[in-house]
Amino acid sequence: MQHNLQNTISLLTRTPAALSALLRDLPEAWTFRNEGENTWSAFDVVGHLIHGERTDWMPRAKIVVQLGETRAFESFDRWGHVRESQGKSLGKLLDEFARLRSENLAELRALNLRQEDLERRGRHPALGVVTLSELLATWAVHDLTHLHQISRVMAYQYCEAVGPWSAYLGVLQCAGHSSP
Amino acid sequence: MQHNLQNTISLLTRTPAALSALLRDLPEAWTFRNEGENTWSAFDVVGHLIHGERTDWMPRAKIVVQLGETRAFESFDRWGHVRESQGKSLGKLLDEFARLRSENLAELRALNLRQEDLERRGRHPALGVVTLSELLATWAVHDLTHLHQISRVMAYQYCEAVGPWSAYLGVLQCAGHSSP
Repeated sequence: MQHNLQNTISLLTRTPAALSALLRDLPEAWTFRNEGENTWSAFDVVGHLIHGERTDWMPRAKIVVQLGETRAFESFDRWGHVRESQGKSLGKLLDEFARLRSENLAELRALNLRQEDLERRGRHPALGVVTLSELLATWAVHDLTHLHQISRVMAYQYCEAVGPWSAYLGVLQCAGHSSP
Repeated sequence: MQHNLQNTISLLTRTPAALSALLRDLPEAWTFRNEGENTWSAFDVVGHLIHGERTDWMPRAKIVVQLGETRAFESFDRWGHVRESQGKSLGKLLDEFARLRSENLAELRALNLRQEDLERRGRHPALGVVTLSELLATWAVHDLTHLHQISRVMAYQYCEAVGPWSAYLGVLQCAGHSSP
């Protein structure tokens, strides 16, 4: 489907509650384990989502609205969350993610974007010209890519425990499609 | 990690609330669309999870406990949910899934399984001998494989809307690893 701003906002609104329902108070055997060296646990992913709320989505949207293509976005630091998350509990990160997402969506709604605004163009440091519409659609799919990753990372913890059923469980065949 | 019954139950307990938080009242453009012919929408997946609660996990666990390897499990009907879900709303399916899961977990707890019970063997119609431990671990990973699928199916709806960012979004590279 075409990008639809209301549908995007509907999805973005739900992700913090969905992650909270899935992860809060879950044993650390699920949430703190990863898929091996230089991979992320569910805890790391929530930290990364927080970092995106702080430095990626709305800051970039505002650059497009205010400056258009004249200023390229800052590069996003894919490991920027590591220091920020250190020493925090997963519950605290989930709360922080929910708060920042809610603030960012309030800011997005306050922009009162019209259809023609969504066609405005910005400049990505690696991808070149992108539209505001593409940026906002990507914000939503970015949530989904990390939900996809979290389900895979958690499933990996039981890859041996399921015995012969592993052949039937698609998530255990998924090696991931982007790093990390 | 080894299978741990408490960890399995912790995860199984959370899935209905996580799916409800993600999907309830979300626009149908997200929840009723699939990836093409003979594939499933998020709505279909919730119907399938309900069918599993009714006919797969606890019925099989009880066969292992009561009859061991002497009786093979019934084959699971992967399209068994279609008729059952017809005409129902997604909200109703989410409620039904939560209720059945809660009843099944109460039944599982009531079995008071000890470590040696988890080693009991049953017979899968295609996979052959399996243990109760493997069956219960698979129940949990089956939730995760469908969370993985739902996130992929929903992301697919925006595969064009994200423009050049598709290269960075792993979930859009995932073609699925089992059918459907």
